[in-house]
Amino acid sequence: MAKEILVGVDLGGTSLLAIATNTEGKILGEKKRKTRAKEGASAVLKRIAETIRDTVHGAGARLKNVRAIGLGVPGPLDPKTGVVLHAPNLGPTWNNLPVAAYLSETLGCPVYLANDVNVGAIGEYALGAGKGFRNLVAIFVGTGIGGGIILNGKLYRGTRCSAGEIGHTILMADGPLCGCGKRGCAEALASRTAIEREIRAGILAGQESLIPTIMEELGRESMSSSVIATALEQGDALTQDVVARAEYYMGLLVASIVNVLDPEVVVLGGGVVERLGTSYIEPVRKTAERYYLNQLDKDRIHIVETQLKGYAGVLGAAILADQSWKRAQKPKATKPT
Amino acid sequence: MAKEILVGVDLGGTSLLAIATNTEGKILGEKKRKTRAKEGASAVLKRIAETIRDTVHGAGARLKNVRAIGLGVPGPLDPKTGVVLHAPNLGPTWNNLPVAAYLSETLGCPVYLANDVNVGAIGEYALGAGKGFRNLVAIFVGTGIGGGIILNGKLYRGTRCSAGEIGHTILMADGPLCGCGKRGCAEALASRTAIEREIRAGILAGQESLIPTIMEELGRESMSSSVIATALEQGDALTQDVVARAEYYMGLLVASIVNVLDPEVVVLGGGVVERLGTSYIEPVRKTAERYYLNQLDKDRIHIVETQLKGYAGVLGAAILADQSWKRAQKPKATKPT
Repeated sequence: MAKEILVGVDLGGTSLLAIATNTEGKILGEKKRKTRAKEGASAVLKRIAETIRDTVHGAGARLKNVRAIGLGVPGPLDPKTGVVLHAPNLGPTWNNLPVAAYLSETLGCPVYLANDVNVGAIGEYALGAGKGFRNLVAIFVGTGIGGGIILNGKLYRGTRCSAGEIGHTILMADGPLCGCGKRGCAEALASRTAIEREIRAGILAGQESLIPTIMEELGRESMSSSVIATALEQGDALTQDVVARAEYYMGLLVASIVNVLDPEVVVLGGGVVERLGTSYIEPVRKTAERYYLNQLDKDRIHIVETQLKGYAGVLGAAILADQSWKRAQKPKATKPT
Repeated sequence: MAKEILVGVDLGGTSLLAIATNTEGKILGEKKRKTRAKEGASAVLKRIAETIRDTVHGAGARLKNVRAIGLGVPGPLDPKTGVVLHAPNLGPTWNNLPVAAYLSETLGCPVYLANDVNVGAIGEYALGAGKGFRNLVAIFVGTGIGGGIILNGKLYRGTRCSAGEIGHTILMADGPLCGCGKRGCAEALASRTAIEREIRAGILAGQESLIPTIMEELGRESMSSSVIATALEQGDALTQDVVARAEYYMGLLVASIVNVLDPEVVVLGGGVVERLGTSYIEPVRKTAERYYLNQLDKDRIHIVETQLKGYAGVLGAAILADQSWKRAQKPKATKPT
């Protein structure tokens, strides 16, 4: 068997998903593990390597058949050196960590890193809701709000590979404090964390809510997307009000991004969007369309839900690995003689 | 003489500037006229053609020496067909107007159109404050707020050539009404129009201000950038307060754009910025730096004043004309046999 297997890994703060695909993006095998970030970077890196090995074997292949491995990481990194600069969700042991070097040495395959939301955008662009478009913006709503930008068919990384921090667009000057320490960012208004904060504030202020009961019944300590969705289904007025506001802010964010970047399609994904589905997308679209500068954009710009859901990141990572590997094979361009 | 002259024209609501340059961007001649938009599109187009002819002759050249003409237009247009879709500042006769076809027929030279702020961005990128950088965002503050985006050394136009509407990034959900009909756009908070509105509101509310006297002395009916600058120089407290707020909002806008696009340089231009200079740039920079997601960006991202000032647009238009002309000369790529 030739080197025809690609591996994509999505490293999250809670769990770790790996897939093996063929060169057409068909999934041949997958493994999911807990990240156990508290055990520190060495233990997590070892676990990633094991998971990749298991995934490849589970797909009936061997490591020597692996063309390249792509890893989506939740934090800033240097794609050239394969070093993760830092990763707040993984803890302080992830500072200036040569992740690609460690994994490629351990596994004997080339390893390429990218930001987790960027690989999500690549996945949706190549195989999901963005198929057939050239300019795409992907926005992932969960604990935070992340984004990936595809322009003219290519991932736009920016000058220092930190483009796409759409969650830190300021939507409300002097608004609520954001996890980043500033005020009024989209993330502070429309993320799951923001929704949770508002619902807790409402309950503290004495508003009735089914949320505490639902959390107890589902055995959750944090207000997950499932808790929020269940409360909406049961007609909880406080949750309906808070989520409607979050959707409104997300609509303003989409409109701002459309006015600046003029994409063909905006893909919305992440825990909250996947769990709420159409009931989330529709009000976001309504607000966004009202705020487009060019009202013709209503009929031209697609605001759609992620198609690959939890697989956008791993598929994007595998695709990015393949692209990077191909680029590395090419001889440097020389002048024609 | 070979076809070595380029012409750049910047068509504004009030005035019309044309230059002739050599292929290195050296200005060989220039003419400025009133636009007199009220006379309607036919009269204005005739005036543009005359101005171009005069400019070329004034540079000691002839129309047959002109390689290409670039025209910056204040409104959406189709660069492929050379049709201006509409131009609110020029009036209703500018709907679906085949401007490039008319001018190229009248003058016998190829004519290329672009949005006026986009040509401003190209000018600064190629010959001004953005020289040597690859990723640049230009923001022009005047009656409105416009923007141009250069990514990887190329003008980013977006899917329908409407990218760069940075003035319609929403900075304050449900904020003041904008000229576009929506609420809370940067333009409604930080443009000259927004500054004027706030100062007038302050005066109506009974605050003391030197503004009415200054306007009378300068013989102005509208609150021009010069009026605002004079009031600041004379220590007018109301104007100081209002301008400080506008600068703060502009800082938030710059930070939002940096977080999304990760450019190397943000060039600020337009009437307000040019008139206020460093005293405007410094507070904008201070706020922007506070709002960068990545605090390392403080030392990496340059926020600078336009260098070409009123010439950014015409020089950019001439450069764009040259680029478009060169592209038109190239034979279509064919596969090597």
